[in-house]
Amino acid sequence: MTQNLSIDSNRLWASILETAAFGATAKGGIRRLALSAEDAQVRAWFCTACEAIGCSMQLDSMGSMFARRPGRNPALPPIAIGSHLDTQPTGGKFDGVIGVLAGLEVLRRLHEAGIETEAPIELINWTNEEGARFAPAMLASGVFAGVFTEEYGHSRTDRDGIRFDTAMDAIAARGTAPLGHPLSAHFELHIEQGPILEEEGRTIGVVSGVQAIRWYEVTLSGSDGHAGATPMRLRRDALLGTARVIEAVNRIASAHAPDAVGTVGLIESKPNSRNVVPGEVFFSIDLRHPDDAILAEMDISLRDAVAEIAEADGLRLALEQTWLSPAVHFDAACRTRIAEAAEAYGYAHRPIVSGAGHDSAYIARVAPTAMIFVPCADGLSHNEAESATQDDVAAGANVLLHAVLATDRALGA
Amino acid sequence: MTQNLSIDSNRLWASILETAAFGATAKGGIRRLALSAEDAQVRAWFCTACEAIGCSMQLDSMGSMFARRPGRNPALPPIAIGSHLDTQPTGGKFDGVIGVLAGLEVLRRLHEAGIETEAPIELINWTNEEGARFAPAMLASGVFAGVFTEEYGHSRTDRDGIRFDTAMDAIAARGTAPLGHPLSAHFELHIEQGPILEEEGRTIGVVSGVQAIRWYEVTLSGSDGHAGATPMRLRRDALLGTARVIEAVNRIASAHAPDAVGTVGLIESKPNSRNVVPGEVFFSIDLRHPDDAILAEMDISLRDAVAEIAEADGLRLALEQTWLSPAVHFDAACRTRIAEAAEAYGYAHRPIVSGAGHDSAYIARVAPTAMIFVPCADGLSHNEAESATQDDVAAGANVLLHAVLATDRALGA
Repeated sequence: MTQNLSIDSNRLWASILETAAFGATAKGGIRRLALSAEDAQVRAWFCTACEAIGCSMQLDSMGSMFARRPGRNPALPPIAIGSHLDTQPTGGKFDGVIGVLAGLEVLRRLHEAGIETEAPIELINWTNEEGARFAPAMLASGVFAGVFTEEYGHSRTDRDGIRFDTAMDAIAARGTAPLGHPLSAHFELHIEQGPILEEEGRTIGVVSGVQAIRWYEVTLSGSDGHAGATPMRLRRDALLGTARVIEAVNRIASAHAPDAVGTVGLIESKPNSRNVVPGEVFFSIDLRHPDDAILAEMDISLRDAVAEIAEADGLRLALEQTWLSPAVHFDAACRTRIAEAAEAYGYAHRPIVSGAGHDSAYIARVAPTAMIFVPCADGLSHNEAESATQDDVAAGANVLLHAVLATDRALGA
Repeated sequence: MTQNLSIDSNRLWASILETAAFGATAKGGIRRLALSAEDAQVRAWFCTACEAIGCSMQLDSMGSMFARRPGRNPALPPIAIGSHLDTQPTGGKFDGVIGVLAGLEVLRRLHEAGIETEAPIELINWTNEEGARFAPAMLASGVFAGVFTEEYGHSRTDRDGIRFDTAMDAIAARGTAPLGHPLSAHFELHIEQGPILEEEGRTIGVVSGVQAIRWYEVTLSGSDGHAGATPMRLRRDALLGTARVIEAVNRIASAHAPDAVGTVGLIESKPNSRNVVPGEVFFSIDLRHPDDAILAEMDISLRDAVAEIAEADGLRLALEQTWLSPAVHFDAACRTRIAEAAEAYGYAHRPIVSGAGHDSAYIARVAPTAMIFVPCADGLSHNEAESATQDDVAAGANVLLHAVLATDRALGA
């Protein structure tokens, strides 16, 4: 370990505050949709900052930005540090941003310390991670990893009908770097977007992977009835059936504690009138678990429970699984380096599973990948009130620095 | 009993079909909003039909129509038969209509049989029972009974901002009959709007009264959270809490079977997104029971249950009772006459509580009142598919005829 080398916490924090001006909202958040004028501003700032420390800047055909700091051995694929500078429409100052700016701070520190690495270090700003302007999310990292084709990526449109490639060209963000070039590793620092680290008073989450996800759409159909004139025993109340499914989803997730989660987030009841027994309810179910096999068990439990409720309540049932995203397991060596770096600094840390998707979830398909989480206040994210402390972000950046250096030593050995 | 006198089932059915043309919808229902052009058509038809059998027609200042057939003793207040000819926007051919047209059939039969009653008989078409154009429902009968002031009635507006009195004058429906004149009795034939009679294979419901009703608005507030990143044990899921309240409402109503009903009809969840734990849910609760005291007990059980759920689930609770309508108990003598008439015809009958409001619920405050229910298919009402059989409607009209005659005999005794 290159002892005593730490990032400059104040400089990192200043760069977070400085770039937060690009798309700043009145409530202290950021509105910086992918490939917008605000995104163009932060991209220009990022390019200038990287070039100022001797990095070369390249863009690929999805507009992703690759700032490369040369290594001793140009034959080695770069060690990548990547995240995103785009935000939600009412996003915060930390989601994605700290991953890129901590990477910049790592490069700045290596630069001023005059450290030459074996492999090149590549700092990446992945385009359109949020999916807020162009669905789906993680679009450019998905194209990079071969999950989506370039044509698919280019043809996505925003709500105004503007294509991704049109928007990219409008801010001159299209480049010629080869899509999907080899990476020796990919590290990403991110806020947790959940409450666990904060609740346990830990600074660093060593992310073991991303949960498997199944989404369902369910419609329960009974019979509309006059709320005054329909006796309880003659009702086929679709909302009562739905209430029982919501309880079952909670039971199934809780039965696989602490890793499983289950959520009914969307519900639409018809006719939705105070004095009418609801005849039809449409709702979503979101089940997640880090282990594909356990999620498959939960799927069976869910289907059994919903069918049983529908049968008992005299309701017609339509249940469709609309999305299955398998679990992602991050690279063991990369995770170990993150844990060792946290340990060396004396940061309280724990393994943690990511509940949300990230660019790293796709990049893990093509390169050894791992992520570092730091706490965010109240687990709040995708919100202008999103908040993380300077010390926690600095801790994450130090861990990032030393995980990269440890990876570089391993490559040079 | 004036033996062997029965109504003409075919003529009654023909008048139902004939007037169904005024506002007929493509799906076989009626759209005849109060004081609309279609309402004016049916009102003109009704006036002509009543005058053709020697009745005098008067209107009060709310546009309610009073067709009076003289009796031997003009000093006696009239025996009234009343219901309404207005419909829901997508209403059926029976709700309200059969009460007025069976009354017309009663008058026609008395007329052609040359029967002179002791008291005058007054057939009433109450304006704006549905409340579909001018809220609240039962507006003109409410003004007649002194529940609302005339000024209040006149100043109600429809969705286009048109006042009740303006709409009434536009079809020349304002009259000078004294508001709230004395009635010896008030009878109303109506479809059940519930499934009980049909399910039990009975023809006549002897309506004992109208249930007491309490309405509530509830907001449960927890915390929005990422559906992937928020562990089950750290959630404050407002929709899960709401599901538990829905189950509790069902339990409380079922515990007071068979008379109690409890319904959550309206639900709005925020932010209502598939991958966000719902942070806030607004919903309505409708509790009804024929007995005010039992409904008061249910109210206490409900408040206890909701508070307990909110406490256990870590949710903030706002619960407001927004409406309390006390139970209405119909006149015992009127009910006995209805039951005796049904018995004399051999119609299967039973006492029944009205779950819905009716003009009779207000008129019961100022005159001895009772209602007769006949079955409707699947309990369906406020729907273009609303359906009742010719035989059942005729049976109801016969019971109406003989309940009126028995009341008249009692007045003359």
